[in-house]
Order: sequence, then structure tokens, then C-alpha cells
Amino acid sequence: MRKNLLTSFMLATVAASPLAAKEGMFTPRQLPEIAEDLEATGLEIDPDQLSDLTGFPMGAIVSLGGCSASFVSPQGLVVTNHHCARGSVQFNSTAENNYLENGFLAQNVGDELPAAPGSRIYVTTKIEDVTDRMREGVDAMSARERYDTLEQRMKDITAECEQDAGYRCQVASFYGGAEYTLIKRLEVRDVRLVYAPADSIGKYGGDVDNWMWPRHTGDFAFYRAYVAPDGSAADFSEANVPYEPEHHLKVSAAGLEAGDFVMAAGYPGSTSRYATLSEVRNTFDWSYPTYVTLLNDWIDTIETAAPEGSDERVKYESLLAGLNNFEKNTRGQLEGARRVGLVDRRREREEALAAWIAADRSRASYGRAIAGLQALSEESAAAARKEFWYGFATRPTMLSTAQRLYRLSKERQKADAEREPGFQERDMAFFRQGLQAIDRRYDAGVDKAQWLLFLDSYLKEPAENRVGVFDQALGLTGDMDRAALSAKLDSYYAGTTLNDAERRLALMEADPTTFENSDDPFIKLAVALYDYDMSLEDEEKERSGRAQALRPAYMKAITEWQREQGTLTYPDANSTLRVTYGTVLGGSPKDGLIYTPFTTLEGILEKDTGEEPFNAPERQITEIREKDYGPYALDSIGTVPVNFLSDLDSTGGNSGSATLNARAELVGLLFDGTFESVNSDWDFDPRTTRTIHVDTRYMLWVMDKVDGADKLIAEMDIVR
Amino acid sequence: MRKNLLTSFMLATVAASPLAAKEGMFTPRQLPEIAEDLEATGLEIDPDQLSDLTGFPMGAIVSLGGCSASFVSPQGLVVTNHHCARGSVQFNSTAENNYLENGFLAQNVGDELPAAPGSRIYVTTKIEDVTDRMREGVDAMSARERYDTLEQRMKDITAECEQDAGYRCQVASFYGGAEYTLIKRLEVRDVRLVYAPADSIGKYGGDVDNWMWPRHTGDFAFYRAYVAPDGSAADFSEANVPYEPEHHLKVSAAGLEAGDFVMAAGYPGSTSRYATLSEVRNTFDWSYPTYVTLLNDWIDTIETAAPEGSDERVKYESLLAGLNNFEKNTRGQLEGARRVGLVDRRREREEALAAWIAADRSRASYGRAIAGLQALSEESAAAARKEFWYGFATRPTMLSTAQRLYRLSKERQKADAEREPGFQERDMAFFRQGLQAIDRRYDAGVDKAQWLLFLDSYLKEPAENRVGVFDQALGLTGDMDRAALSAKLDSYYAGTTLNDAERRLALMEADPTTFENSDDPFIKLAVALYDYDMSLEDEEKERSGRAQALRPAYMKAITEWQREQGTLTYPDANSTLRVTYGTVLGGSPKDGLIYTPFTTLEGILEKDTGEEPFNAPERQITEIREKDYGPYALDSIGTVPVNFLSDLDSTGGNSGSATLNARAELVGLLFDGTFESVNSDWDFDPRTTRTIHVDTRYMLWVMDKVDGADKLIAEMDIVR
Repeated sequence: MRKNLLTSFMLATVAASPLAAKEGMFTPRQLPEIAEDLEATGLEIDPDQLSDLTGFPMGAIVSLGGCSASFVSPQGLVVTNHHCARGSVQFNSTAENNYLENGFLAQNVGDELPAAPGSRIYVTTKIEDVTDRMREGVDAMSARERYDTLEQRMKDITAECEQDAGYRCQVASFYGGAEYTLIKRLEVRDVRLVYAPADSIGKYGGDVDNWMWPRHTGDFAFYRAYVAPDGSAADFSEANVPYEPEHHLKVSAAGLEAGDFVMAAGYPGSTSRYATLSEVRNTFDWSYPTYVTLLNDWIDTIETAAPEGSDERVKYESLLAGLNNFEKNTRGQLEGARRVGLVDRRREREEALAAWIAADRSRASYGRAIAGLQALSEESAAAARKEFWYGFATRPTMLSTAQRLYRLSKERQKADAEREPGFQERDMAFFRQGLQAIDRRYDAGVDKAQWLLFLDSYLKEPAENRVGVFDQALGLTGDMDRAALSAKLDSYYAGTTLNDAERRLALMEADPTTFENSDDPFIKLAVALYDYDMSLEDEEKERSGRAQALRPAYMKAITEWQREQGTLTYPDANSTLRVTYGTVLGGSPKDGLIYTPFTTLEGILEKDTGEEPFNAPERQITEIREKDYGPYALDSIGTVPVNFLSDLDSTGGNSGSATLNARAELVGLLFDGTFESVNSDWDFDPRTTRTIHVDTRYMLWVMDKVDGADKLIAEMDIVR
Repeated sequence: MRKNLLTSFMLATVAASPLAAKEGMFTPRQLPEIAEDLEATGLEIDPDQLSDLTGFPMGAIVSLGGCSASFVSPQGLVVTNHHCARGSVQFNSTAENNYLENGFLAQNVGDELPAAPGSRIYVTTKIEDVTDRMREGVDAMSARERYDTLEQRMKDITAECEQDAGYRCQVASFYGGAEYTLIKRLEVRDVRLVYAPADSIGKYGGDVDNWMWPRHTGDFAFYRAYVAPDGSAADFSEANVPYEPEHHLKVSAAGLEAGDFVMAAGYPGSTSRYATLSEVRNTFDWSYPTYVTLLNDWIDTIETAAPEGSDERVKYESLLAGLNNFEKNTRGQLEGARRVGLVDRRREREEALAAWIAADRSRASYGRAIAGLQALSEESAAAARKEFWYGFATRPTMLSTAQRLYRLSKERQKADAEREPGFQERDMAFFRQGLQAIDRRYDAGVDKAQWLLFLDSYLKEPAENRVGVFDQALGLTGDMDRAALSAKLDSYYAGTTLNDAERRLALMEADPTTFENSDDPFIKLAVALYDYDMSLEDEEKERSGRAQALRPAYMKAITEWQREQGTLTYPDANSTLRVTYGTVLGGSPKDGLIYTPFTTLEGILEKDTGEEPFNAPERQITEIREKDYGPYALDSIGTVPVNFLSDLDSTGGNSGSATLNARAELVGLLFDGTFESVNSDWDFDPRTTRTIHVDTRYMLWVMDKVDGADKLIAEMDIVR
């Protein structure tokens, strides 16, 4: 270890020069504007090339819906994170063929397995600016009219675009509605699992290491896109053929060094970098602390109701993992906000922006918009608090199922184009699938325990936050004791037939009267709450309509103000393709501690306890002990790098993003951020924000030395 | 932060040169033998000087019994860790004068407060080798005879030495009994609290940061030794005067750099570096895992029985802190043992030693001793396992009190010189104090909850590990249900009068018959168990007698073998004065992570949440924000260092040890080891073992800028 340690110290020093991470999730078409900095940071290809979404390399970048991925062979081979494909591994696993435990590798193309239901690969084929069409005349409208008009136009543009069968279209809003872009994507519906290492590699470290550095996770897996022989999107069929993408990435085995240029292209989900002070305050002073308490109680409740090892627990594993992840993330956000002084920083930004506006009378309209937005933020925050516990109190699975089904019956009375998004014909495949999936994730006893937990808090709310129609329907009186409440809830679970999947699916075709005449207690409750919930939705739409006028002006002010300071304003993440760039870079998360930029194979031996989640496969342990590095060792650290850190700007949805070097070759996959980085959703702290990647050299080493995926390696263009 | 971070990176590199920590807790008289290495490491004074225990600097080093300390003024001022003096702060705290919360500073000598009862400062005045007198003829004796002879000689030598009133003497055994040293110490009984910063400085980070790096704990406090006007040790009296030590340390404000020579002189308690393979196995495969489970259950039991905020909890805070500390330490030991492959390393050592012995026929007697020791280790391990749960099942406070008192009545029938150690006249002051202290730490309900927990495990033991006389006395039958057991225990707590301190103290004078005729259920149980417990003690003494013959031979083999390899064998820690030396050094506790050698004032701001244990005083926060460093900043890091890491070899008991620079000036106080170091009690891993010190510059900064302890600063010799 002597050599490695020494090198780590040296790398830490090398890495010390560019200390601040680069903030920015840029849209590809913004990149030419910052060409100079891209080149200064190390990009070797023409920055203009990055702005062509259907050219190379961006044409190789795809979305899985929630995760990012990329083509890495001319035969439609797609690489993404293990955690993005794990649902498909699980879906195909049986007690006999436990692919989660043993990994899965299709020996031949014919052995590839269908991915989990609903798996998609979205290949962007066209991008179009539709701002003018979207925004025409909306400034003059009333709030609600603006909201309805924008929504209708969005649906119309989407519908026109989706005339072309097999494509999925989306109108994305940028800068709070200042710009709109139509994105057209081929929707590959026949997705197959090609290769996933065992959980003990792909999920190494599990929840313990989630958000943590040092990290040793082989978070990679391979899918393949299949289409009909004519190249069109199609459902799974034996007759389908691998999709031949126009572009795919070369895979680098050449190795990165600390300080090297890297960029990641992917689909970050959502950030709040331009949130107003009152939004920040409401979130960090109220929502997040409330959530942390709630989440801990919620996790306890499920763990008690569904004891470890029980059948119920299997159904709730996924929710529990999500709640734990959310809890850890929220705690990290609170810690980060305290550390960077988020509230003070936002106050300072608002004050500086206000001063800039005040300095020039022509900016007065910005000032008015910002004042309006601030007032609106307060209103929205008040409404969110008021409805918070009511929202949870109406969360039981069968109640929300009944609510969605009843709503569908109402929406289906309208022409498809006029229905609420989520209830249109284009949404029905996912709607159906959602109703089917309930069985795998629902147990009445556990559901009831959660409902009781939420009701406990709801019942403690002041009278003005209680909802009369709900109290009445459930018979929630002030002096109701817990036993009576519990018995009441029991009658709901005993009396419902919604736990039958056939019945749920049948109700997709029912008309409103069927619901209104139903004896099912959850359906009765859904019907009773309908008008109240619609009034909440109306209020919300009205606020959205106001925001749609105010936020574009606010973002325009920010953009102009930042431009004067030499900064290019990038839009908040919105699940559209973004590029973030920077360097391979360790860091100091806190006084006294340094993260080195790379972890190593030997670190796996160090961490391994033989017990999940630190149970590397025997074969891997042996190969590491024998120092069988193959051609994948990095000279500067004397071994194979496993994960590396960069100063890239990423968030949820970026998972699986291709990490590219200066020549746009694949050098890794982005899969996580450090615990000190989670707060970057609100405020990018250049000192502590670090993104975690799995190194392609580790991927190739595992494929070569541990899993014998030689054919797959041969299928890819490996460059050195 | 930019500058600090950069410097940290650079320091990490500087620190990279001497990568391996130096193993060794050397006795001062060993130091001349390694003079060359001491000088090569950076020592500037004559190494011979360090071997004179009553000269400078060793004459300034004192023991507090369990902690280490040192004189830092000619007026008997003693500096030690805050956690070593905290009991005295607590003892003097009231709701009105909460010194734990606010800190305590005596404005004048007359304002100094008496330390907690039992506080002592032991000043070494003489050291004498008594090996010949101790060991004469013992090799030829039977095991039990050897044990009894050695114990009697130890008591006799101690008694002779303590003829000199006011002194406390001890015969210490080295190398498993190969050597014996008589240590004579002045027992300063009038100890006064001079200054302790607030918990929010002195205990900053609390249990969360315990054993952790990065660390920001101001773990220092000051006592003063008082003696009678004639210079003799005396109980507290207004007439007493400050003790004038022959030697005291100068305090350096000059600052250390990474890589600088440091040494620590103190009283490490116990290590097991030469444990045999079977001892290691029994500990790591059985004892420690059993303890981790037990400790977690035990902590839960107390926390449930003594809810947070209750009066009961106050009584158990100290036990809880101890259990939590033990649990974290034991977990760290298990983790460390796995990481370094402790069992394999011990097997390799035994094999290598065996090969060395086999290589020369004259070493055959070593081989026989080692074989005997291995067999004995197995026997001792088997006995320890057999008695483990019985030991806990007989742990209730009033039972062990009754056992000690009954034993005392028996011992008091013998001449003082023949009594068991712990029951001689010289032990009675502490014995009495122990009986008095129970009231502050005992609650019958909580005690019973613990007893039930221990009994649960005891009852699950196989028949051969059950103790008939105990089962009979408690009426423990196979089919006893928990309610019946609980009721039975209730009758014990209801029926005892031992919860009365007066009664306990009175029983110190009682004869055995008084106990044998007592109706007190705990006393009856103690009497019933006496013969069985004595038989266990006899067996243990017989095993000890065997070990006293075998272990010196084993250690002799180790010493010769290591000498041939150029290594000086140091004895395991035994609470006698030791010196460890090395350098200021960061480290890499694990792949991907680096500890920088210093933490900084700014790290406190970063960590501070305003809530315990991260609630630095307002005054301190302000001073840090204003960068009011005074003359205490370290140029290389641009701010005041708070804590630092070194590669010194330390363990429990070393707390408060003076950390000295190359000129034997005080540069800090040793107060902890990192989590990755706790395993060094069994196996010193030079890669990860790091000791944590509070820097004198931080101590002086706090005294100067936060607490205004100017007079104290003036009293010390500050050098630059």
C-alpha cells in the first residue's frame, strides 16, 4: 500500500490547482457561447460539435426516463448504471436464476432478456424552439387563462408531433417558462437486458455507501435497443432486430489522471438554483425538517408493520429504500444549507439583484415581477403547509387509486386533446401498468399502519388546516380515540375490492356514475373528496398561471444581471439533455479531511466484510489479491481505479450519464454525488460539490477478469 | 477557505514521507538503547536525559490514576485533559454555577475548588528494580505456591515502601513477570480545580466525535497540587500550600509543522501486543462479538428504563457514556482486526517464532514454555466463556456490594499483610469512597432491568455453564416464566437495606457472622455464592501461577528473536510511565480518504450546529469569524491549529499525556486515537494508527481570547 498511498497524496496535490468546481448544467446549444472556457478546461473537440443534438457525440446520448444512458456499439448496445437497470434484473430473477445475486450475462444476442415492463429507451431525433407559438399573447391574459392556454398549446404541439407513430414528444419549459422547446424522441419499447454484474459488484456498498465517498461501486449495466425490422419502434417481438443508432460512443481504456477534462451528458431531473428567498426559507425552515421527522417515523412504521424477513417486507423493500434515500438526502441538504449559509446567501443575492434593478429605471418591471413572485412564493408556501398533512392523510394506496380512476372517468368524458395531462390516451399504457404494479407493492396491514401514522399528524393540525368533507367522510371527531379510528380504517380495508387488479383495470372503462353509486369505501371517499380536491387544483393552477408571467421576467433579470458579471445563466434542470464539464478532482469535504480523486481495487479488499453490502464475489477478491490488473491499471496509482470524483454539476436523473473525456470518448458513468453535494440542488458550493463516477477501466476489468464478458468488449470500440 | 485548503493539500504531501508510524511504548530506561533512532527522528535533547525519571523532563510527568498529566509551573500547576478533570467540574457544578456549561476559571489561587473526592496526583519519586527479590526461587515452585509467593512479596515490598507516610507504592510487572519494578510516588491528596473551559469547548464533538478525525476538541484543563506547609501530602486544608515540583514543562507557542518530531510521556493502561494466537482468537472470534451484542442490548435496556430527561437518567449518564465508548471501541477493534488480518498475522508470528526456536536446540525450553502457554490460553478462554454469563448474572449493584463487604469481613480476620489486595488497610479509603459513590449512580428499577437482561442470557446457557448454588438461591428453574422471575427480583430490591449508604459503611466493620445471619436477600445471596466464587478464584490463581512461569520465558523468546531482527522489544502497557515518539503526521485511514495533520479554528465554524455537542460558545464563534488569531496562528495553515495527528503509540490511560517537541517543551496534550487505531491495542498497524492531540496554540488561544485566563498564561513559561 505504500506506493498507492504516496501517489494518493501526490494526486491530492495535483488536484489542488483548480479548487473550485464549475457550476452549470448547460443546454447543448449554450455550449458554443462558452467555447473559450471549454477549451481552456481541456476540451479537444470543437465545442460547436456538442450543440448538435443529433450529431456526434450527443446523438449517442439517450434517456431511459428517470435515468441517462448512451449507445456504445453500432448494434444498439446501451450502457447505463446498474441501479437504473436493476429493476430489469429483479424482474427476470427467480429463486433458481437469481440474477441479482449472480449477475446476468447474455452469452449470445438471442439470450438477452426482456427488460422490466415499462422500460424505454428514448432516442432524441428532433429539437425545435416553440417559444413563440407557446407564449403568443399569454402576457396579456389572466392567470388562469394563461395557465389553461399554455397547457392546451403544450398538449396540441405534443399531439401534432406524436402523429408520427413510435415517437414520444415533450414540450419542455426553460427559465421558468421564458423559453419552450419541443423534443421529439424515438420511443424504443423493446428493451433487453444484456449484462449486469452481480449486486455484490453493481450495488457494492448498498445503502451504507449511498451518497458517500470513498466509494467502490461497479454501478454499470448494459441494455440493447430493439426495433421492428423496418426500424420503427415496436413492442417486444422475436422478429425485432437490434436498433442501429446513427452515433455511438467509443470507450476509452486509456485512463484518466487527476486534473483531466471530463464532461457528462445526461438528463438531470430538477434543481432550484434560482429559488427565491421565501421558497428557500419555506423549504429549509419548514418542509425539510418536517420531512426528516416524518420520514424517520414512516420508516419505523413500515419496518414494524413489515418485519424483516416477512413477505410484506419484500413488497416494501423498494419504498423503504426510497424513503431511506430521501431521508439521507434531505438530511444532507439541511446540513449543507447550514454549512454554506444558504438562507443568508439567498438574501444577499436578492439584495444584490434588487440593487442592480434599482440602479436603472428601465429595469423597474423586473422589480415589480420579483415583488409579485415573492408574494406568490409566500402564498404557495402557506398553501403547501396548510395542505401538507391532508395530502398525506389521503395517501393510502386504494384511496389514491380510487381518486385517479374516478378522475379518469371524468376526464374521459372530454375530447382527448382537452383532457388533463396524465389522463390522455397517450398516458394509458403507463396508467394501466401503474394499476397492475400495485399488487407487488401493497399490503393492507402495512398500508393501514402508514395511514394511521399520517392521520395522527393530520389530527393534530389546527382547525383551519382540517378538511371538513374529509373529517365528515371518515367520521374524524375531536374526541375519537385511536381504537375507534383503527376500527374505522379496518372497515375500509375490509370493504374494498380495489385490491383486485382485474377490478382496478376494469374501472378504467367505467363512467362517473359507476363510481358515484359504488359501495366501495375508498371509492366513496374519493367521490366525496373530489370537489374539494378540484378546488385545491384550481387554486394551484391559478398560482401557476401567475408564476408563468412572473418567473420568466425574474429569470430575464437574473440572466441580464449575470451576463453583466460575465456569467452565462443556465436554466434549472428539467429532465432535458444537459452538459456539465470540469475536471477529475478530489476535494476537502470538511476541515481535516481530503477525498482523493480515485479509489482502487485494493480499497475493495479493505472494505470487504464478506457480508452484504460489502461482499465482493470470491472471484473478484482472488483477482485483486493476485494483482491481475490486465491492461486496466492506471500508472499513477499503480492499480485499477474503481470510482473517481469530478467537479461536475449533477443531480438525480443524471444517473447513468456518459462521462466523456476531452475527445468525447466514454471514460466512465456518472452515478452519484457526495453527501456534501446534495445541497447543490439549491446552491452550488464549488468547494464541496463533487460527482462520483465509475471508471471505464473498472468496468472493463470486471467484464474481462470477473465476468468474462469478452464478446461485449469485442462489440465496443475500445480506444487507448 | 481557499488558502487553507491548498495548504492542507501541501501538508498532506509533506506528511507523506515517513509513512509508517513507529510502534513502541518504551520504558524511559529503554530510550538510551534507541538513542540513534530518537535523534534521527528529530529529538534535540540528549536521549539519556529521558531515562532519568526524577530529572527533567520526566520529573514533570505525573499520573492522576487512570489519566496522565504534567506540571507546567513551579507552583504545582498541572495540565491534563478536560475529560480527565471533568468529574471535578461536575462535582462542583450546581444549577446556579453550572461549570460544565460555562466553564470554570479561578480568578485567584484562593478561588480554586477542591477536585472530586478521590482525585489524586501521583508524583514519582523513586524507581527500583526488584526483580531478584520478587523472582527468587519461584521457578521451582508449584503454580499456586508461585502465585501466592509473588503476591505476598509484592504486598511486603509495597508495605515497606509505604512506611514513608504520604507515599503510594506499586510493584509493577513487565514482560509477563520477567521483570518487576518498585515505583514510589508522592500521593497528592489535596487536588484543586484551577481552570476548565466549558463543555462546549472541552468536550466539543462529544460522543459523536469520540475516536474520530477530523476533531476539534479543546480537551484540556488545569489542576493544582497542594501539600501541607512542610511539603508532605495531606488531605484538603485551608492551610495547605501549592506543591513546588522539582521540574515543570515549558509551554511552546512556537508551533509545530507536519513532520516535526513529537513524543508523549504518560501512563498507558494495558495492551496485548504479545497475546498468543489462541488469546487473539478467543477475543476476536468470541468475546468482542459477544460484547458488541451485549452492549447494544445493555444500552437499550438502560435507555428504556431511564428515559431521557428523567432523574434516573442523570444517575446512569456516566455508565451509558462508558458503555457507548466501549461499544464503539470494541466495534473499531473488530473492524481493525478484520482489516489487518489480525488472526493471520498472529498465526504467522507464532509460526515464525516456532521456526526460530526450532533452528537452535538451545531454544527448546522456549518451545516448551510456548506450548504450555498455548494450552493455558485455551483453558483460560474456556473458563472465561463458561463463567461469562454467570459473571453478568451476579453483577447487580447490591449483590456485588454485599459480596465485597462479606469478603472484607473475611479478610479482616487475617493480618493486614496477608489480606487479598484490595482489602488491605491501604485500600480502605477508596473502598469507603466506592460505597459512598453508589448513591449517585444507582436506581433500583434500572438496576433490575439490567439484571433481567443478564439473567435472560444466563438462562439460555447450557446446563454445564449454569451454577447450581446460584440457580438454587434465586430459584431459577427451567420452566420459570419471566413474570415469576421479575417478581422474584422485585423481592430482592424490596427486601434489601444496602441501598442505605450509612448501612453499607457500617457493614465495613461487621464480622462474617453478621452477614451469615442477615436476612437481606442480596447478602444472603452473596453468602450463598461465596464458596463457589472462591473456587473460581482458586482456579484462576492456579492458572495465573502457571502463566507466571510460562509468560516470562515466552517474552524472553520474543525479545531474543526480535533483537536478532534489530528490534527492541518493549513491554506491554501496564499503567507505568512510557514514552512514545514519532512525528506530526496525517494519514490515509482508508482507500480514497486522507486525514490532514491539523484541524483549524475555521473547522469549528463548519461543524457548529449550535446544538450540543457542536455548540461552540458565542464568544468563540465571534473571535473565529473576526480571525482574531493573536500570536497563535500557524503560518503554514494561515490560522490557529486546533487538534493534530501524530503516529505516536498510545492507548487508554495515555489521556492527558504531555506531548513534547524535540526540546521537550509542551506542544500539546494527547487525548484520543482515531477509530482505525483502536485495534492497535492488539496489533500496531503503522499505516492507520494515529494519535490525536490538542495543540498548545489552541489551548493558549482559548485561554487568551475566549476565557481571559491571562494570569494562568503568565504563570507558565511560554516559549517560542
